Amino acid sequence: MDTITELLRGALEEVRSLGDGATASYIPELAQADPERLALSVVGPRGRVRSVGDEDAEFTIQSMSKPFVLALALVEHGRDAVFAKVGAEPSGEPFNAISLEADTGRPANPLINAGAIATTALIGGDDVDARTARIVELLSAFAGRSLWIDESVYASESSTGDRNRALAHLMRSYGVIDVSVDLAVETYFRQCSALVTVRDLAVMASTLAFGGWNPVTGERVVGESVARDVLSIMASCGMYDYSGQWMLRVGLPAKSGVSGGIIAVAPSQFGVAAFSPRLDEHGNSVRAVAIVEQLSERLGMHLLEPHESLAAPAVSVEGTAEGPTIRLSGELGFAGTERVMLVLRELASGMPEGATLTLDARELARTHPAALAVLEGEFEGLPLGLRLQT
Amino acid sequence: MDTITELLRGALEEVRSLGDGATASYIPELAQADPERLALSVVGPRGRVRSVGDEDAEFTIQSMSKPFVLALALVEHGRDAVFAKVGAEPSGEPFNAISLEADTGRPANPLINAGAIATTALIGGDDVDARTARIVELLSAFAGRSLWIDESVYASESSTGDRNRALAHLMRSYGVIDVSVDLAVETYFRQCSALVTVRDLAVMASTLAFGGWNPVTGERVVGESVARDVLSIMASCGMYDYSGQWMLRVGLPAKSGVSGGIIAVAPSQFGVAAFSPRLDEHGNSVRAVAIVEQLSERLGMHLLEPHESLAAPAVSVEGTAEGPTIRLSGELGFAGTERVMLVLRELASGMPEGATLTLDARELARTHPAALAVLEGEFEGLPLGLRLQT
Amino acid sequence: MDTITELLRGALEEVRSLGDGATASYIPELAQADPERLALSVVGPRGRVRSVGDEDAEFTIQSMSKPFVLALALVEHGRDAVFAKVGAEPSGEPFNAISLEADTGRPANPLINAGAIATTALIGGDDVDARTARIVELLSAFAGRSLWIDESVYASESSTGDRNRALAHLMRSYGVIDVSVDLAVETYFRQCSALVTVRDLAVMASTLAFGGWNPVTGERVVGESVARDVLSIMASCGMYDYSGQWMLRVGLPAKSGVSGGIIAVAPSQFGVAAFSPRLDEHGNSVRAVAIVEQLSERLGMHLLEPHESLAAPAVSVEGTAEGPTIRLSGELGFAGTERVMLVLRELASGMPEGATLTLDARELARTHPAALAVLEGEFEGLPLGLRLQT
Amino acid sequence: MDTITELLRGALEEVRSLGDGATASYIPELAQADPERLALSVVGPRGRVRSVGDEDAEFTIQSMSKPFVLALALVEHGRDAVFAKVGAEPSGEPFNAISLEADTGRPANPLINAGAIATTALIGGDDVDARTARIVELLSAFAGRSLWIDESVYASESSTGDRNRALAHLMRSYGVIDVSVDLAVETYFRQCSALVTVRDLAVMASTLAFGGWNPVTGERVVGESVARDVLSIMASCGMYDYSGQWMLRVGLPAKSGVSGGIIAVAPSQFGVAAFSPRLDEHGNSVRAVAIVEQLSERLGMHLLEPHESLAAPAVSVEGTAEGPTIRLSGELGFAGTERVMLVLRELASGMPEGATLTLDARELARTHPAALAVLEGEFEGLPLGLRLQT
Repeated sequence: MDTITELLRGALEEVRSLGDGATASYIPELAQADPERLALSVVGPRGRVRSVGDEDAEFTIQSMSKPFVLALALVEHGRDAVFAKVGAEPSGEPFNAISLEADTGRPANPLINAGAIATTALIGGDDVDARTARIVELLSAFAGRSLWIDESVYASESSTGDRNRALAHLMRSYGVIDVSVDLAVETYFRQCSALVTVRDLAVMASTLAFGGWNPVTGERVVGESVARDVLSIMASCGMYDYSGQWMLRVGLPAKSGVSGGIIAVAPSQFGVAAFSPRLDEHGNSVRAVAIVEQLSERLGMHLLEPHESLAAPAVSVEGTAEGPTIRLSGELGFAGTERVMLVLRELASGMPEGATLTLDARELARTHPAALAVLEGEFEGLPLGLRLQT
Repeated sequence: MDTITELLRGALEEVRSLGDGATASYIPELAQADPERLALSVVGPRGRVRSVGDEDAEFTIQSMSKPFVLALALVEHGRDAVFAKVGAEPSGEPFNAISLEADTGRPANPLINAGAIATTALIGGDDVDARTARIVELLSAFAGRSLWIDESVYASESSTGDRNRALAHLMRSYGVIDVSVDLAVETYFRQCSALVTVRDLAVMASTLAFGGWNPVTGERVVGESVARDVLSIMASCGMYDYSGQWMLRVGLPAKSGVSGGIIAVAPSQFGVAAFSPRLDEHGNSVRAVAIVEQLSERLGMHLLEPHESLAAPAVSVEGTAEGPTIRLSGELGFAGTERVMLVLRELASGMPEGATLTLDARELARTHPAALAVLEGEFEGLPLGLRLQT
Repeated sequence: MDTITELLRGALEEVRSLGDGATASYIPELAQADPERLALSVVGPRGRVRSVGDEDAEFTIQSMSKPFVLALALVEHGRDAVFAKVGAEPSGEPFNAISLEADTGRPANPLINAGAIATTALIGGDDVDARTARIVELLSAFAGRSLWIDESVYASESSTGDRNRALAHLMRSYGVIDVSVDLAVETYFRQCSALVTVRDLAVMASTLAFGGWNPVTGERVVGESVARDVLSIMASCGMYDYSGQWMLRVGLPAKSGVSGGIIAVAPSQFGVAAFSPRLDEHGNSVRAVAIVEQLSERLGMHLLEPHESLAAPAVSVEGTAEGPTIRLSGELGFAGTERVMLVLRELASGMPEGATLTLDARELARTHPAALAVLEGEFEGLPLGLRLQT
Repeated sequence: MDTITELLRGALEEVRSLGDGATASYIPELAQADPERLALSVVGPRGRVRSVGDEDAEFTIQSMSKPFVLALALVEHGRDAVFAKVGAEPSGEPFNAISLEADTGRPANPLINAGAIATTALIGGDDVDARTARIVELLSAFAGRSLWIDESVYASESSTGDRNRALAHLMRSYGVIDVSVDLAVETYFRQCSALVTVRDLAVMASTLAFGGWNPVTGERVVGESVARDVLSIMASCGMYDYSGQWMLRVGLPAKSGVSGGIIAVAPSQFGVAAFSPRLDEHGNSVRAVAIVEQLSERLGMHLLEPHESLAAPAVSVEGTAEGPTIRLSGELGFAGTERVMLVLRELASGMPEGATLTLDARELARTHPAALAVLEGEFEGLPLGLRLQT
């Protein structure tokens, strides 16, 4: 087990004892979820997936589908057309609030239910099946494998969906939705019922982290500007009326779902997903939120953390009895890892396969929390062993 | 004139023709401002200040004081104590809205008037003068020079301040404010009346960009976690009911003031300030907003822009008739500049003072918008000439 | 033409020149109404109907059906059961507002659309036809003749009814509505499409004025407590966000409809209805509102007008050349008319058919505005002529 | 003890056991009130005051001053000028809500705190003392005796009045209040601190009931149209967010105060006041509300009760062994009492002082609840005995 996986496992165990919250109760399928399930997955720049806990457990994607369907709408119609129908402001209200913009009937943003239904209504296709197929295809491209709809969850959602139908009729009365209410909400209920694992979600999040390019499949799923727009909306509005607190404490674009999942994105660094069915009073998973908060803190992923990009360490290379050793001293900022990697690759290019290289970080006065993990990750691509001294 | 200054001057001229908006009218001192004033200033990592336009024009800081007084409150009381009195959520409402949290009377966040008054009320000191002195001292440390209060603006603000007094009485009725209403609002009116130039504001913004460390004076003004908290709140709530749109389009923590200024922060990269007195219907400077939007776009400063940190260029060095030349090809990402700087410094160390080095970027397939400016900036510290080929 | 009819005609002509407003536009059937139509009808205690203007013009009842369907719900379920599903407070909002009580989803009152739909949903019957039949039967009993549904208006309402469907789905999500959304809203659209004349409406209003007893047919339609409850709700909530102003200026329970009608009730005195299709910005008929305001003023019908019940006139009877004369002097309050009527009937009982009696009111220092009209009305039942001297 | 007094005493005892609620806590003077105090007073058309319970207990008038200060503002400025500064719509919100009309800053109505402060600010006078004197003079004229301010309650109110000061500053920022905030709120706090008994309040209420004419002193205090306007506002807005329910259940213009009093007005019939310090969650006296509800029910005072004015009984007069007897049969409506009184007075005029007249109501099929009480009241002015057979 590598350093990063160890770090993830530690984070998982730290939150396992959190006993608060309850599974979502509004449909039986969610209420019956095993409340003790717990999983975490992280995907980094080179597409390596690291998962711990119940990584194979499947659950429905629910509201975590919203950013990706927003991406599809942006691809199909462009930014101006999409934001003519739905706003970009946090609503300061719960996910299922009924408030729409006074004169226009526009929902506040694409990540509350009303806005998500309006966004889904923009997706092309003659009927519910055609539209759903298009959405599932995109979700699958983000996830890097073919996803499926859980038809029994869908049926439950549809049969209890009065509130969402109300929103759709209301928006239709303003012309925000042009298609029939059934077409809009049935497609929406189906998209929410796509089955995913925590691994799928982490790959999806990483595809947003790397500008729409899936680092696992190597496929470009959406363009960079689409990814950036989606992340911007997630940063402002992804956590409903907890969005400001989330920015303060975690500082990552994120989106949660009522099934107990959460995705978070550290741009250019990681896609993260966590899963645990018990929810707090905001409808967010108690333990999944706690894990992401902790990872952000430990890995220094807060968007507004000043990454001192110029803090480059002093690097020296010595031959020792154990083979070549790279010694670092001074400060190692995040961007400074690039410099070390340069040296490291150069050295590596002259070493025989299977040899071991030592990285001595013991004299670093100060290290960016994620820097060593990045260096270690870099090493994975090489046919060499790495001995890390910290 | 260097590349960056040229870029700034271009941005300035591009918005000069924008004729919309009007100067703030609620006090005569603001209404009388010369509506054509226009200035822009940027401070980068090494503390070099570049300003263009009416860089010496003084104006009152107004609401741009709010993030810095929040910083002072965080220093004096800690995060928990401050956010017990004031929320961290965008209000989705105009700056002077009367809404407070239903049961507690807490204002939504520290950047609307109510929240700023509550924050100011936390600053220690026996009377208005003592409290004001403390605040001005901190603002001065952020700006790197001693700032002063414009007493006539202060007098005007105080005489028309019924709405702010209403907010203060209301918060006092909930116990959000413990001190007398006069102590809270008179201190607040004074803080808003501090005189600054666009250069001062850019230095203040850069101090937030570099984690509370003033890159011009080299003084640590506040701790990193304080700077991060302030930037988080600016990102969520800095542009009132335009905050979500701002995140979507600009992607930088920012704060505007009714005098026509705006500050924006690219963490670890730049502090930016712009100034032009005519305001739009949200109370933001028409031309200052336009400049910041443009700079963010051109320099790729959007927080959620995927900075492809691993895109490092191929670097080769040749001796030519004009002296040594560094040739770049492939892709130059932002973090990739570090690699080039390494080579550049190595080369430079072997060159005589006054010699000229050539940087040939003509074969780069793709370049991060700010990368060359950063390289150029790096060069400024060296006793050498630089010839840039693009 | 008697005095009262003359008074009505005068009122009608006085508002005829009001040219403001426009016919309702949301369905073609309403938009095509002749905007110049104008009619007024009043029904007094003995069931005599007086109508002037376009009294035969038929139009759909629209929101004026709401108080009567409330009456039916009260009959079927009792006050407690009805007000468990719908509130009794003015909403301070327009008729089609989306706001429901926070925790319960109850609409504010039965006279806004949401509340009317919830009330209609309470009416028994297996399907839309059965429920509609029940409602039309009650409306007919109030009107004293069989009413019909305008099927083309109904079809239009149903095809554009997204907003009302939204409200119904929303209330269903709270359990405020138990039946299917279609059953509730289709019945509601049909009830709104019942065709009435201004005469029908005046009879309906008079049935409320006389405690649920139809003074034209002599049939008891609903009980007194039901009539009182309906009038109470009309007094508080009948004119939407103009209800307080209406109470101040007019002082009568009332209800308007988007087809241009309005009903008003002077308890124990009159039922009034007016009709003219052009609407103001609140959706109330410009000229119908003006007529009712005027009548209330002239006839002293304001509920809170102190009717000085003890102001009884001095009454003396003389034989004159023209036959017997009743002379009134002093003050004639509303209740004081009873005393005069006593004398009048006594005298009349001794007079031959066709004889003429003189009522000399010239020495009254002060007269309740409606008193003489009431006396004149009393006389209508007698086989005698009346000469009124004022 | 007469019939009416007996009825009042019965009503009082019936609510005495209600143990809910607590005295107002926001100032010590109110919290220290004896929670068991209980009193009721009714003033009828001829100015006879009937009081039961702790009728001499003094307490501060608090919000019950609001309708009378509204009357004074209407006298001084006229209806249009007053309602230019304050609305006439129920707010649907608690008494101390902060909401003002969006663009104008007008408070919703004169009976919420904001509206009352705006109304008080309209009263003429150079300083707080002059303005207070004017108000106390009017309150005294309504009460029929000189009232005084409780200075210690005033001092308490003033020292805890942040919320009301907030409202005043806010309204001043809109120009709704022209005078200084201190002038407005200090006058307001003083008006609320006037000391009254339940008897005073009943006389004040009866002065509104009889069109502004004080039936005890015989003095005209304000004009009829002023009284009518005040009653209209009390009907719409007097019970805050319980106004609609109050109209439904009680049907009388009313106003309560936080000291535990309530006044209610049956126009042309009675002024009523009740007092008991324990308050419910709306800030209304638990037992005072219950008494007024009960009285309204028993005396048939609901404004929208159809008073069948034409239901006149058959009246016959017989000489019996016990002296003359008036026999009533058929129905006795409220207005029908006039007819009986006519006969009664005629009979009485021929009877010797001290004789007894019998009123036999045993054959009435149906009687207005208050009719016999009114007849009995009528009798009080005569030098005769009355024997009532029911």
